Amino acid sequence: MTLEQQFLDYVKKIGAYNEALGVLYWDMRTGAPKKGIDQRSEVVGVLATDVFNLSTSDELKQLLDELEPTIDSANNVTKRVFEEVKKQYELSKKIPADEYKKFVIMQSKSESVWEEAKSKNDWGMFKPYLTEMVETLKKFVTYWGVKDGNPYNVLLDQYEPGMTTEVLDTVFGDLRNRIVPLLKKISESPNQPKTDFLFKHFDKKQQEAFSLDILKQLGYDFEAGRLDETVHPFATGLNRGDVRITTKYDESDFRSAVFGTIHECGHAIYEQNVGEELTGTPLSGGASMGIHESQSLFYENFVGRNPKFWEQNYGKLQSYSPEQFGDVAMEDFLRAINEVKPSLIRIEADELTYALHIMIRYEIEKGLFNGDLKVEELPEIWNAKYEEYLGVRPETNAEGILQDVHWAGASFGYFPSYALGYMYASQFKSAMLKDIPNFDELFEKGDLSPIKDWLTKNVHQYGALKKPLEILKDTTGEGLNGNYLADYLEEKYTKLYQL
Amino acid sequence: MTLEQQFLDYVKKIGAYNEALGVLYWDMRTGAPKKGIDQRSEVVGVLATDVFNLSTSDELKQLLDELEPTIDSANNVTKRVFEEVKKQYELSKKIPADEYKKFVIMQSKSESVWEEAKSKNDWGMFKPYLTEMVETLKKFVTYWGVKDGNPYNVLLDQYEPGMTTEVLDTVFGDLRNRIVPLLKKISESPNQPKTDFLFKHFDKKQQEAFSLDILKQLGYDFEAGRLDETVHPFATGLNRGDVRITTKYDESDFRSAVFGTIHECGHAIYEQNVGEELTGTPLSGGASMGIHESQSLFYENFVGRNPKFWEQNYGKLQSYSPEQFGDVAMEDFLRAINEVKPSLIRIEADELTYALHIMIRYEIEKGLFNGDLKVEELPEIWNAKYEEYLGVRPETNAEGILQDVHWAGASFGYFPSYALGYMYASQFKSAMLKDIPNFDELFEKGDLSPIKDWLTKNVHQYGALKKPLEILKDTTGEGLNGNYLADYLEEKYTKLYQL
Repeated sequence: MTLEQQFLDYVKKIGAYNEALGVLYWDMRTGAPKKGIDQRSEVVGVLATDVFNLSTSDELKQLLDELEPTIDSANNVTKRVFEEVKKQYELSKKIPADEYKKFVIMQSKSESVWEEAKSKNDWGMFKPYLTEMVETLKKFVTYWGVKDGNPYNVLLDQYEPGMTTEVLDTVFGDLRNRIVPLLKKISESPNQPKTDFLFKHFDKKQQEAFSLDILKQLGYDFEAGRLDETVHPFATGLNRGDVRITTKYDESDFRSAVFGTIHECGHAIYEQNVGEELTGTPLSGGASMGIHESQSLFYENFVGRNPKFWEQNYGKLQSYSPEQFGDVAMEDFLRAINEVKPSLIRIEADELTYALHIMIRYEIEKGLFNGDLKVEELPEIWNAKYEEYLGVRPETNAEGILQDVHWAGASFGYFPSYALGYMYASQFKSAMLKDIPNFDELFEKGDLSPIKDWLTKNVHQYGALKKPLEILKDTTGEGLNGNYLADYLEEKYTKLYQL
Repeated sequence: MTLEQQFLDYVKKIGAYNEALGVLYWDMRTGAPKKGIDQRSEVVGVLATDVFNLSTSDELKQLLDELEPTIDSANNVTKRVFEEVKKQYELSKKIPADEYKKFVIMQSKSESVWEEAKSKNDWGMFKPYLTEMVETLKKFVTYWGVKDGNPYNVLLDQYEPGMTTEVLDTVFGDLRNRIVPLLKKISESPNQPKTDFLFKHFDKKQQEAFSLDILKQLGYDFEAGRLDETVHPFATGLNRGDVRITTKYDESDFRSAVFGTIHECGHAIYEQNVGEELTGTPLSGGASMGIHESQSLFYENFVGRNPKFWEQNYGKLQSYSPEQFGDVAMEDFLRAINEVKPSLIRIEADELTYALHIMIRYEIEKGLFNGDLKVEELPEIWNAKYEEYLGVRPETNAEGILQDVHWAGASFGYFPSYALGYMYASQFKSAMLKDIPNFDELFEKGDLSPIKDWLTKNVHQYGALKKPLEILKDTTGEGLNGNYLADYLEEKYTKLYQL
């Protein structure tokens, strides 16, 4: 066996443990019995320790060292795998093994406790777990090494390579400068949509049937995936032949399931279409969190909120919930689902205010890691920021500090990717229009495959073979540019609200 | 850390991989997307190799060797764990690691292929996999070492310690001598039950609701389990807090789901009630396959086919499928569900003919391992034996040679345990009646917990802490005795058919 093959086999073994862990996590979130969770967390701890040990072993170090001198002559996949594994090795090697194992067990329990705490609106139940997550990660950041006194940049870089608070402060500032006046004009507009019909009863089973129908239209491959129900929707790519989606059915607000499903479908289609040669390697999960989010948001906003999409689907929607929509004109429906309204729940937020939800989380994370913000202050800080940025204040912690799973799983530094995803998606849309000028006509023809094919050709197939900015540059000809998003929002909402 | 603690930690690590594998298997059977299976099989291979490597490592050998001199002073749990692990070590050590890994990957694929082959009635699709399973296991048996020229005994012993073809030939012979004349009398009786109503349409969702209701009555703990649908029903104990059941809904024969669910519930209640101190050890899975089966059959036959049970549940059943049962008197229903009728499908067989299904499989397995039976001859042999023993002949391989999952998973030697389970169960029932003489009244009171409590006290709690015959002796005062089963069958069916 060549050294290169030995290295790839070794890496795919790590991939196998990660895939097993993925199934265990999916299972814990979709319906594993409560009484088995403690013992299951031990099992997760054992496998995660294996991943950690394999990722930090002397054997891996030796493989990396031996491969390095000739890596430039290897093929492109091997080269990028080498680069990623080496980066991960250097990150992981700095964490003591026993601390990592303890962290992983606690992380898994924390996610379970969060689910229960959210359903019981019990912040006190979750607080000690969150505290432990933050403290542990702070310690890890010191192990990884802090540059320029900015610990939070260490975390940002793990989700979006090269991202810093300096860039984000600027981009978010500019974006807020365009969103806030637009939001003000909208709120003062006399042309507010009627939305009462959105909140009428929509049977869960009917929502599920409609969601499945939409997934088929978007090109989600059901032989390589499945749809389940969870408290918080997610997509998980176990391997390219098994990329699962979950959604949340709210019988008093169908938008949660429909737009949630479309969003997760965007993530899933990405991983279903990653190049087969990347299977089992760390390149199969996508280029970055921001690029991943650009795919989900592309589908959610440019497909799911597109009037042309609803021209084909509104009749169906009416038949799945006739009492709700039978008397509602499509025009009114479209204005309602595109309503701009400051709200409490991120995943239910409109396109325009969404970024403000992200900015709040970003500032809290920055405060926790770069400032002197304490976990016990979070519910109050959260509520105060919502009041300041969005003009709404959560009445319960379940719709406030407890709403997202991310912090329960110690995913700090992840949230900003969502906002980056909006910007990337807008840039991709603009580039796609050059290749597919008749974009809107695809909906009339009832064949959306050119959209998926374009995204697969330009984004999906590469997985993490290319870096985020490389994909952006190759596809759009330029770097990160927030103006496409701002222009899109201004144009769309000026028209919708007749500003 | 003491040596004993080190040893137990080591063993529990093996348990963790087995639990992860259990979740992966459950997932593959209950709905994992088809296109992900090949890669998932690789993952299973990696984890199974870990189990194998840990179970055969020098480190384990050293722990066993160092612990052995003082093991008699250890507590009972540690002593039995030691004994089991040592036995398993000696078995596994004899298989070359690469052959074992190849076997496990093939085994996992084989079970998937079997599922598809059965649904397509395609024996040719499954044949190469079964051939490979048999050939591999034959080779393994030579590694393990054959005594007295009887390779099949090596396999029997792994499911039911001490069991031999000599014992089985005798016990099965005696049982057949009592079943066959009884069967003849029954088939000649003019008092045949009406059964046409059994096969009317029973909605799947309603069957599920009724199954869930029954599970609650039997004492299945839903916080430590869940019910799903599969082609072939099974129970899987991942840990005592997570023991899952699956069942099969046949809309033209509700018995498959109802009695299948009750059967698997018996298995599941066993593992939900194993002593907590056995968690993560190889003792948590029960004493033997035969004892396990005695628990499922106890529930299926002494609870689920008990007239008193139906006095409480028949009204409910009628309400779940009113058009089917509205006009059927309970007396007729009871006679119908206890109909004795030679049939093709083992899991749908009645109590009386069930053992004949087992004897056919036993003889085929014995022929494959001790004789010169070839895999390609199996469909014909199977069909011929069904004709000879039961007087019925399968028309398709799906209802013949392809009907059970066991051989797809290389579980040869397992089937006889089912018949042993019948005998053990009858012995337990007889012993239970001494402690709970008012057994039948429990149903009238609507509280079946004394049954579960008795079984937990005498059987469940011990897991594999006691050996099968020890449990039997301690509980019933005697050894294996097939007469209890034969007496029960003669008494019950003489009355039912007014012989």
